[in-house]
Amino acid sequence: MNRQQLRVLLDEVRSGVVTPESAHTRLLQVLRQSPFEDLGFARVDHHRATRQGFPEVVFGQGKTADQIASIAERLVSAGHSLLVTRTTPEAYQAVAGLVPGATYHDLARCITFDHGATPRGRGTILIAAAGTADLPVAEEAAITAQVMGNDVDRLYDVGVAGLHRLLTEQQRLCAARVVIVVAGMEGALPSVVGGLVDVPVIAVPTSVGYGANFGGLTALLGMLNSCAIGISVVNIDNGFGAAAVASSINHLD
Amino acid sequence: MNRQQLRVLLDEVRSGVVTPESAHTRLLQVLRQSPFEDLGFARVDHHRATRQGFPEVVFGQGKTADQIASIAERLVSAGHSLLVTRTTPEAYQAVAGLVPGATYHDLARCITFDHGATPRGRGTILIAAAGTADLPVAEEAAITAQVMGNDVDRLYDVGVAGLHRLLTEQQRLCAARVVIVVAGMEGALPSVVGGLVDVPVIAVPTSVGYGANFGGLTALLGMLNSCAIGISVVNIDNGFGAAAVASSINHLD
Amino acid sequence: MNRQQLRVLLDEVRSGVVTPESAHTRLLQVLRQSPFEDLGFARVDHHRATRQGFPEVVFGQGKTADQIASIAERLVSAGHSLLVTRTTPEAYQAVAGLVPGATYHDLARCITFDHGATPRGRGTILIAAAGTADLPVAEEAAITAQVMGNDVDRLYDVGVAGLHRLLTEQQRLCAARVVIVVAGMEGALPSVVGGLVDVPVIAVPTSVGYGANFGGLTALLGMLNSCAIGISVVNIDNGFGAAAVASSINHLD
Amino acid sequence: MNRQQLRVLLDEVRSGVVTPESAHTRLLQVLRQSPFEDLGFARVDHHRATRQGFPEVVFGQGKTADQIASIAERLVSAGHSLLVTRTTPEAYQAVAGLVPGATYHDLARCITFDHGATPRGRGTILIAAAGTADLPVAEEAAITAQVMGNDVDRLYDVGVAGLHRLLTEQQRLCAARVVIVVAGMEGALPSVVGGLVDVPVIAVPTSVGYGANFGGLTALLGMLNSCAIGISVVNIDNGFGAAAVASSINHLD
Amino acid sequence: MNRQQLRVLLDEVRSGVVTPESAHTRLLQVLRQSPFEDLGFARVDHHRATRQGFPEVVFGQGKTADQIASIAERLVSAGHSLLVTRTTPEAYQAVAGLVPGATYHDLARCITFDHGATPRGRGTILIAAAGTADLPVAEEAAITAQVMGNDVDRLYDVGVAGLHRLLTEQQRLCAARVVIVVAGMEGALPSVVGGLVDVPVIAVPTSVGYGANFGGLTALLGMLNSCAIGISVVNIDNGFGAAAVASSINHLD
Amino acid sequence: MNRQQLRVLLDEVRSGVVTPESAHTRLLQVLRQSPFEDLGFARVDHHRATRQGFPEVVFGQGKTADQIASIAERLVSAGHSLLVTRTTPEAYQAVAGLVPGATYHDLARCITFDHGATPRGRGTILIAAAGTADLPVAEEAAITAQVMGNDVDRLYDVGVAGLHRLLTEQQRLCAARVVIVVAGMEGALPSVVGGLVDVPVIAVPTSVGYGANFGGLTALLGMLNSCAIGISVVNIDNGFGAAAVASSINHLD
Amino acid sequence: MNRQQLRVLLDEVRSGVVTPESAHTRLLQVLRQSPFEDLGFARVDHHRATRQGFPEVVFGQGKTADQIASIAERLVSAGHSLLVTRTTPEAYQAVAGLVPGATYHDLARCITFDHGATPRGRGTILIAAAGTADLPVAEEAAITAQVMGNDVDRLYDVGVAGLHRLLTEQQRLCAARVVIVVAGMEGALPSVVGGLVDVPVIAVPTSVGYGANFGGLTALLGMLNSCAIGISVVNIDNGFGAAAVASSINHLD
Amino acid sequence: MNRQQLRVLLDEVRSGVVTPESAHTRLLQVLRQSPFEDLGFARVDHHRATRQGFPEVVFGQGKTADQIASIAERLVSAGHSLLVTRTTPEAYQAVAGLVPGATYHDLARCITFDHGATPRGRGTILIAAAGTADLPVAEEAAITAQVMGNDVDRLYDVGVAGLHRLLTEQQRLCAARVVIVVAGMEGALPSVVGGLVDVPVIAVPTSVGYGANFGGLTALLGMLNSCAIGISVVNIDNGFGAAAVASSINHLD
Repeated sequence: MNRQQLRVLLDEVRSGVVTPESAHTRLLQVLRQSPFEDLGFARVDHHRATRQGFPEVVFGQGKTADQIASIAERLVSAGHSLLVTRTTPEAYQAVAGLVPGATYHDLARCITFDHGATPRGRGTILIAAAGTADLPVAEEAAITAQVMGNDVDRLYDVGVAGLHRLLTEQQRLCAARVVIVVAGMEGALPSVVGGLVDVPVIAVPTSVGYGANFGGLTALLGMLNSCAIGISVVNIDNGFGAAAVASSINHLD
Repeated sequence: MNRQQLRVLLDEVRSGVVTPESAHTRLLQVLRQSPFEDLGFARVDHHRATRQGFPEVVFGQGKTADQIASIAERLVSAGHSLLVTRTTPEAYQAVAGLVPGATYHDLARCITFDHGATPRGRGTILIAAAGTADLPVAEEAAITAQVMGNDVDRLYDVGVAGLHRLLTEQQRLCAARVVIVVAGMEGALPSVVGGLVDVPVIAVPTSVGYGANFGGLTALLGMLNSCAIGISVVNIDNGFGAAAVASSINHLD
Repeated sequence: MNRQQLRVLLDEVRSGVVTPESAHTRLLQVLRQSPFEDLGFARVDHHRATRQGFPEVVFGQGKTADQIASIAERLVSAGHSLLVTRTTPEAYQAVAGLVPGATYHDLARCITFDHGATPRGRGTILIAAAGTADLPVAEEAAITAQVMGNDVDRLYDVGVAGLHRLLTEQQRLCAARVVIVVAGMEGALPSVVGGLVDVPVIAVPTSVGYGANFGGLTALLGMLNSCAIGISVVNIDNGFGAAAVASSINHLD
Repeated sequence: MNRQQLRVLLDEVRSGVVTPESAHTRLLQVLRQSPFEDLGFARVDHHRATRQGFPEVVFGQGKTADQIASIAERLVSAGHSLLVTRTTPEAYQAVAGLVPGATYHDLARCITFDHGATPRGRGTILIAAAGTADLPVAEEAAITAQVMGNDVDRLYDVGVAGLHRLLTEQQRLCAARVVIVVAGMEGALPSVVGGLVDVPVIAVPTSVGYGANFGGLTALLGMLNSCAIGISVVNIDNGFGAAAVASSINHLD
Repeated sequence: MNRQQLRVLLDEVRSGVVTPESAHTRLLQVLRQSPFEDLGFARVDHHRATRQGFPEVVFGQGKTADQIASIAERLVSAGHSLLVTRTTPEAYQAVAGLVPGATYHDLARCITFDHGATPRGRGTILIAAAGTADLPVAEEAAITAQVMGNDVDRLYDVGVAGLHRLLTEQQRLCAARVVIVVAGMEGALPSVVGGLVDVPVIAVPTSVGYGANFGGLTALLGMLNSCAIGISVVNIDNGFGAAAVASSINHLD
Repeated sequence: MNRQQLRVLLDEVRSGVVTPESAHTRLLQVLRQSPFEDLGFARVDHHRATRQGFPEVVFGQGKTADQIASIAERLVSAGHSLLVTRTTPEAYQAVAGLVPGATYHDLARCITFDHGATPRGRGTILIAAAGTADLPVAEEAAITAQVMGNDVDRLYDVGVAGLHRLLTEQQRLCAARVVIVVAGMEGALPSVVGGLVDVPVIAVPTSVGYGANFGGLTALLGMLNSCAIGISVVNIDNGFGAAAVASSINHLD
Repeated sequence: MNRQQLRVLLDEVRSGVVTPESAHTRLLQVLRQSPFEDLGFARVDHHRATRQGFPEVVFGQGKTADQIASIAERLVSAGHSLLVTRTTPEAYQAVAGLVPGATYHDLARCITFDHGATPRGRGTILIAAAGTADLPVAEEAAITAQVMGNDVDRLYDVGVAGLHRLLTEQQRLCAARVVIVVAGMEGALPSVVGGLVDVPVIAVPTSVGYGANFGGLTALLGMLNSCAIGISVVNIDNGFGAAAVASSINHLD
Repeated sequence: MNRQQLRVLLDEVRSGVVTPESAHTRLLQVLRQSPFEDLGFARVDHHRATRQGFPEVVFGQGKTADQIASIAERLVSAGHSLLVTRTTPEAYQAVAGLVPGATYHDLARCITFDHGATPRGRGTILIAAAGTADLPVAEEAAITAQVMGNDVDRLYDVGVAGLHRLLTEQQRLCAARVVIVVAGMEGALPSVVGGLVDVPVIAVPTSVGYGANFGGLTALLGMLNSCAIGISVVNIDNGFGAAAVASSINHLD
């Protein structure tokens, strides 16, 4: 019930078209409802879905193929795009049966279905990855960014131990509106990239490594302590999260 | 030596104005120089300074008042704005002697001097802080954002244990282009804020708390594991770093 | 030997019915016995069993199906209710052969048998869970609370990133006598719930998450550092423990 | 605006006593207000204050004596009881100047002022402490519990290495409605107490110890892993938090 | 009330000297008393004091000089030996005023008074220390062992980086009945000593070191993981604890 | 070459039976050899083997059945007793083929063969275990202690949450010459036992538990910080190591 | 384009053999190329490959047999030696099909192919290992060192608990130009070796152990805190990395 | 007693100049002595002192000025060079009184005295430091390297966030025989340097930073997990240790 509707109702009470009892009942309903829905809270959610094209991302890990397929079918039926992360070929078989146009991204371990109406981000999201073992996380970021309506530029295998690989690509780095940097082991790549660009850098530590890398903790701590400015960090192996941040930046007017 | 200068040089060799020996020497110099200076690498730095108004931020901790003052004087003389973080009133006395218009921000523990020509960010950076003990970090972020050319909206004392304080301010939250959330203890505020806005959220854990907060580690881990999307994290107590990220986002076209 | 029996014995010594030697022997026996049995210590245990209906909970993990079945049979034969936690369908098959009326709770991974005479708690225990992945722990708490004689209200999927889901349920929250809050990842839900109710809140961190959640440590630390008051915490994934605390509170007169 | 008031308003619109315009304005106000205040959210807070006698506890650490005194004065003027934790004799001097009847509790490092109308809890809160070095935390709990309207029984210096000290006090243990157990070092006391009582036990780890106690982490972990049931845990050294939980339990009808 | 006293009481009841009522009352008192005192529990404590000469060790840290002095005076008046650990010259001044013969051990930071009747251990306790910075801990162990009635042999500055210093002292190592090994940094000395002797070795990690020694954690973990057999470990810097273990071994018949 | 042999050699040089050249060669050999063998170092090893009956314990984990069997055969052929820890029924099959009288201990996961000549310890080693899940570690200690020549008394399922189970067994506790205490979860049992006996207590933390027990770290830290005296600690799950320490104590004259 | 080529080009411009336009184009190419290749940066890489015989080491973990085989074929075809670490017999089968002379090293889990022209190091690299469980890591170091052109001396099973095994081998220790020390558990061997030699010692912690060894963390910390000088450390289980460091030292002129 | 002396002794026995008894006694003495002194063990130590010029380095932390001065005087009197690390101007005053030519190095916090006869290393040790706050550690390394006889090249303030500062100095990097890299915060500099040189790189993490740098742990872990090869690591802030390793490399023939 918006401002106009409220005024109309009260006028109708005044003129006798609506009885006070009936108006009482209707206004009580409004007050009893989630205030957030009435106050525009849920509208923010719908706004998000309208602009970015995905109302809910399915975290596949720990769900059965059937569960994933039925959630996917429900979302696509409702007219939304689809993104399932951390999933498997088996889950894809189940999804494909219900959502014909769905695609499986092997390296990224994602299922997507694009309804084609996602608002486009303004620039390019560059995704830099230090080593080949970091690619699953980098690809999760790339696929996520794409399904959220962003152009993606991939710059892989540019670890800091062979700097020339990175330095020869400075033009691509500087052409991006947001940069995602994916690295395991010591996680030094974001510091170097952060010194080369002046757009926001989202750092993603990966669990790649062994021994004292402690499942990605070393890369995470390294990125949090970066001596470069303009860097913020997401959870270990969280390619999806980095892309969601990057996409929200890239969709700013 | 740019493209045009190179062509001129070669034409002069051809016409005999410049001898091959002399051109040889000059080109060797170019090749021996830092390629980055010639290839525009340092220009990125100057571009950054030109657009954002600060070429170098002085981390005051561990430096003497005299050291800080002389660095400050050098920067301001060169026409730059000034930001000194983690500093003291003593250092400010020293700086004020050399940089007359400098200002000390007590709660933020910062010294600033604004040369007045910093490019303005496009929107507002909202800084939300959970408790009053988080204010030094929040203010470091606020002062940093301001000196970098951003409008700042402060929303303090909105911890999650009294949600109504936050929920009644949703309009201010939704009016921001970037949100910085500062919280210690369990660090839950970014998760709640992240569910209310769809702009980028930069989370800053603080060392506020005791016992099992482990100097801010608990808040840091909580923010990295947030169930909300669109959140990235900086180091513990790093208000400056959060503002630098937010400013780079807010300066995107 | 209780107070009356002692008086009788001494009267009998006085009257000569019992000789001092014989009384001496009998009193020495009492003194040599476990003082706790004579002093009411074991009675506390029986009191607990009588009032709450379960004398011993079987922690199923690491026990074979046969071991579980034989313990279960012994307990039920003795007239007790039965609760087996962290168990499997295989163990249930074995138990069901010996305890016909036993029930298996799939999501909670529990086996129960209710002898029907458990004293009832005074109010309702509300169990709030942040995400669907937290449900096994939430259900372990729910089944435990029920078999201990409590009414249970389940409020699931109310994570802090979508606050309206929780806020529209404030009446149910406020109707509870005790609240159990189950959450993984950053573990922020107890802080929000703690600000909405003034009954005791028992927080249960879960190991749900990945990367820097460190098997539930992040949620645990977050809950211990909660800025809300009235919250206490149990071990990671310990749904049973939380329900035992909640039940002891709910059975207070 | 409650249900009755709404009906009256609508009747007045119908009868012409209130114009639709005026009613429109008034209802818009209600909808624009924090829904929580209108929906009873803040009333919960007032209910809490009314029943327990303290609307806000002042955490003294990091606040100046003057800040504490002015907050204290404001609270007491508003008719509330006062509790300042983690404070100093200096702060007390400042408070006493503004709040004449305020009391300083040296060992507990608390300032209190009791307005005399705090609702009484139903039973006794027993506070057991393992060693003399744990007393500041135990006393913080005791003073907090008292100012919140609870009877307190102190059972100090009953560490597990001299069990008889504890076992001879079983009657006092069993007479309590809630038990708070304060212990540092290995934090074993709650496990032993938990086996002796069947009321809720709130365990408070302290930072007492040295070497591998890691500032109370050892005691905290020990309490979280207790083999006894009915135990929940609060943050290291958090005597106040334990008492708040215990008081909320003790005030249950 | 011992076995004889009980028989006498019962005889007196029989003979009429004591009425059953009076005997009833007296026996109820016994049953209500700590059972441990009656059952010999406290006798263990006295036995310990009698045989080893110290009923209670005063941990000086966190106690005022006056508190230490008054405890010391009470213990010595009761005929016991005295050991105060982790104390200061100031505390010694206070103690010396009340306990004339007390001695201060500067390096060990201990105060002792020996009543001269402590039972002697059977052999020698050898205390090996890796470096000079470990001596305060080693001396705390040495003084503790001596006041508990043991012969002590000190073997200091025998770190593993200069093995010949240790190897030339093998006879002294082999002459000991128990060996205490004190080491910081990497804590390797117990492994080497454990390979040279076949008596029990008590390892004491110290907090000596810097950087990644983490306050003695590195030495502690090293000692717990020793590849040598016959080694057990006490807390970081716990020279007293090691000596107490060694003395209990050395006093075995 | 021992003292007598050296004298004989020198006499033979003097008498001309051995030439100086030949004696030179032989003495150079002695000096070139491991000095430890000549100086009695290896003799210590043989002394150990002679007195305790096992020259080398086989740590089975990570070794194949065939490797274990061949090592076992070699040791037994050389006249030694045999102890294989952390092994499997498969390894036992292989061992039994080569060492006919070898025994497999299922719960302890050990293989033993006793040559019957191991020197006997002087008293009894009591092994107390907190819960049934701790029994594999407790039995590893028990079997190790037995094969090393000690009488063992097992006191199982005496966790601190049911103190009466332990307190009724004080006579057995006090009859031991050494006590090994095995406990997981919070690891509180050694503190309680340490307060009841005055013989050495060896504490063994186990990895039994879940959540914040961190694979036994919690129990380990708890035991290191015990408030009882006379306790030392071995590595997590190291039943063998505890028994080796206890046996070395029990074999002291 | 080197110095000579540049001079020739400029002479050709002068003489008209090359037009300024064509020279312009060619020089622009040089400037656009990776400056590092032109400035000798990549030459360092080729120099490394030429001198040490391996341009890239294949980390086998996480790669399929086919991936490894195709990389191996490409490297060997290009005339390089081959080293694949952390690989499997299956991968070897695939490699052997494409690289006929390749060898599999079972214990080291490495595949090598030596093209026979690797420059030789100047001295011997001695590899000392504490226990038999450390051999896979030690052999990875040995095979790496050999394929990089170094003579290797293996000194295995010389743990510090049986020092004579090490001390009798001092001549071999002192004959080495670099020493690699591999040890798990407490990681004490490097400290002892560091006291016996004055050449560089590279310490490699292994994950061998259990309980509080925390996957090699204990050995790592021990080695970093070594009291001996001349020791540096590589990551846990990183035999390859230690050998690469040792080889770079051994190839110094 | 060396080879010749032994032969002479035996000849004298043969000829009767020395009696067998007297020779027996003398040879027993040799066998009883530390075998290491006779077998050349201590000679290694002297060899080290002769070649490198420092027999013992004084770790100043925790020693009084007088203690340091008397040790320094003893060493210099014996003809050795002197190095005191982690010391203070006060200690220098005391040393200077006894060792006239001693020098204090303010930034490095070291005292040195060079006797002028230290053997020279073969090449240059380059010391790179990331930031100005790392200089105390870098200078400790530099002064240590110099007093040990090495030429040192300092390359300071070359952190990875401004790569051009490092890249323009590649010639100096490549001219070094050993490189020490000192860095705090994320510790990324060694990875970058390791990719630019092929000589050994010794990485020194510093405790510079705040928040999640955990006193240098982040830099330490980053360096241990470096993706570059040829890097080994020393303890946090251990500039001395790095220089000792580098010097031992630089003194290799």
